[in-house]
Amino acid sequence: MAELTEIDDPDDPRLGDYTALTDVELRRRLEPAEGLFIAEGEKVIRRARQAGYPMRSMMLTPRWVEVMRDVIDGATAPVYVVSPELAERVTGYHVHRGALAAMERRPLPSPDELIAGARRLAVLEGVNDHTNLGAVFRGAAALGMDAVLLSPNCADPLYRRAVKVSMGAVFSVPYARLASWPRDLQAVRDAGFAVLALTPREEAVPLAEAAPHRLDRCALMLGAEGTGLTPRALAAADTWVRIPMAHEVDSLNVAAAAAVAFYAVSPAGAPGG
Amino acid sequence: MAELTEIDDPDDPRLGDYTALTDVELRRRLEPAEGLFIAEGEKVIRRARQAGYPMRSMMLTPRWVEVMRDVIDGATAPVYVVSPELAERVTGYHVHRGALAAMERRPLPSPDELIAGARRLAVLEGVNDHTNLGAVFRGAAALGMDAVLLSPNCADPLYRRAVKVSMGAVFSVPYARLASWPRDLQAVRDAGFAVLALTPREEAVPLAEAAPHRLDRCALMLGAEGTGLTPRALAAADTWVRIPMAHEVDSLNVAAAAAVAFYAVSPAGAPGG
Repeated sequence: MAELTEIDDPDDPRLGDYTALTDVELRRRLEPAEGLFIAEGEKVIRRARQAGYPMRSMMLTPRWVEVMRDVIDGATAPVYVVSPELAERVTGYHVHRGALAAMERRPLPSPDELIAGARRLAVLEGVNDHTNLGAVFRGAAALGMDAVLLSPNCADPLYRRAVKVSMGAVFSVPYARLASWPRDLQAVRDAGFAVLALTPREEAVPLAEAAPHRLDRCALMLGAEGTGLTPRALAAADTWVRIPMAHEVDSLNVAAAAAVAFYAVSPAGAPGG
Repeated sequence: MAELTEIDDPDDPRLGDYTALTDVELRRRLEPAEGLFIAEGEKVIRRARQAGYPMRSMMLTPRWVEVMRDVIDGATAPVYVVSPELAERVTGYHVHRGALAAMERRPLPSPDELIAGARRLAVLEGVNDHTNLGAVFRGAAALGMDAVLLSPNCADPLYRRAVKVSMGAVFSVPYARLASWPRDLQAVRDAGFAVLALTPREEAVPLAEAAPHRLDRCALMLGAEGTGLTPRALAAADTWVRIPMAHEVDSLNVAAAAAVAFYAVSPAGAPGG
């Protein structure tokens, strides 16, 4: 059972993991370097635990101590109880869900490992908005994608905002980072995957016509909101697919486009009579 | 051509339409009562104009005057030029895209009018989060839904945040508000629509099995994030459909679920060989 410690000094070094959470640049450097990430809110903390991530500590406001009692009882990591005001002072924002946990990262699987075990892969290029990245993971989890491969310039799925928006899906969908982009896509192709690139370009085949749910192994490549896939990534794909659009709309939001495409490549997307 | 007026007094009554934009409750009362809405950012303002909404005024920071020159030249409404600091003081937030327009609402079409002209209807119940509502409209526009019907307790599609997230899709997809819920669904059914309710319930038919793209006239009913459709709404549907989910995820975000469902009911969702 974890020990509860009340802290009332915002400079207490035991709260170091929770400082300046809104300083994106600082946290981007600090968290991977320290091997930690922040899980926020009851549900997300529980899912991180269930996924087996070791806990370094929790920082709770008093009203969350009872809610998290079973987690506290099942953990050995220290639990720091702080006032809402202190939580705000340390983190830099009003912690709406007054439960934060500092969790330990684990080594990522290798891309080869994920490729070997998967039939449906999402491959993301340059998705560096944490909200979009989290939302794409949520869709990937819900719609049964087996794994996610990230280009080197994708954002960190364990960044607090990505974790939160994903509702913890970043813990359940395994992911790996490709070292050389787009060259490492060759390993995907070598494993027998058809590599489909999602693009609004007119030359692309409508998604339904490509009937990707019939493919034995399918990797679906998505770019960032706005810019989309780079020419190099498009050139590395086997097939370009598009979601037919109406109403002169620019495009779907990347998370919505991803959900449609994940649905279309999943066995669930196989149409009935 | 519109007249440019520099204003440096935050209490100038000509800026009244732009006051306290972050005060959701105030704006919720003020905007419909005054028959106005706020369009934010160059793209959204242009789309509101293209859709034919009359402009009451614009409030621009100096650097946006040149960008919006053609809009200014084509309008007769006054244009107020203010410093970024004044814009922030009046609106209550840092106006990142320094172009705001106060536009005039128009009378909504009647539900009957929309029902008569449509083959694909989205019917929303209790979607009162402006971000979600805007995102659902964006998906509806992109994926070719003909119109949206709103239950009485849905949020206002012309609220600034909804307009912005929709990228102006609230101007291109016609919508109407039903007066009596769910009773007015009868008019939808009377017009020959199959009414499909999207729900995660296990008893529901997988979306692809229902093959909704084959329906001549299809109304797709969606509830709010989290709570979903009420039992009364579910009871009023002809068929319950679900998006098959994996990985023990709660659900997709409502905008992602809507996009998947809009895709599945559209002719574009008709699968190829």
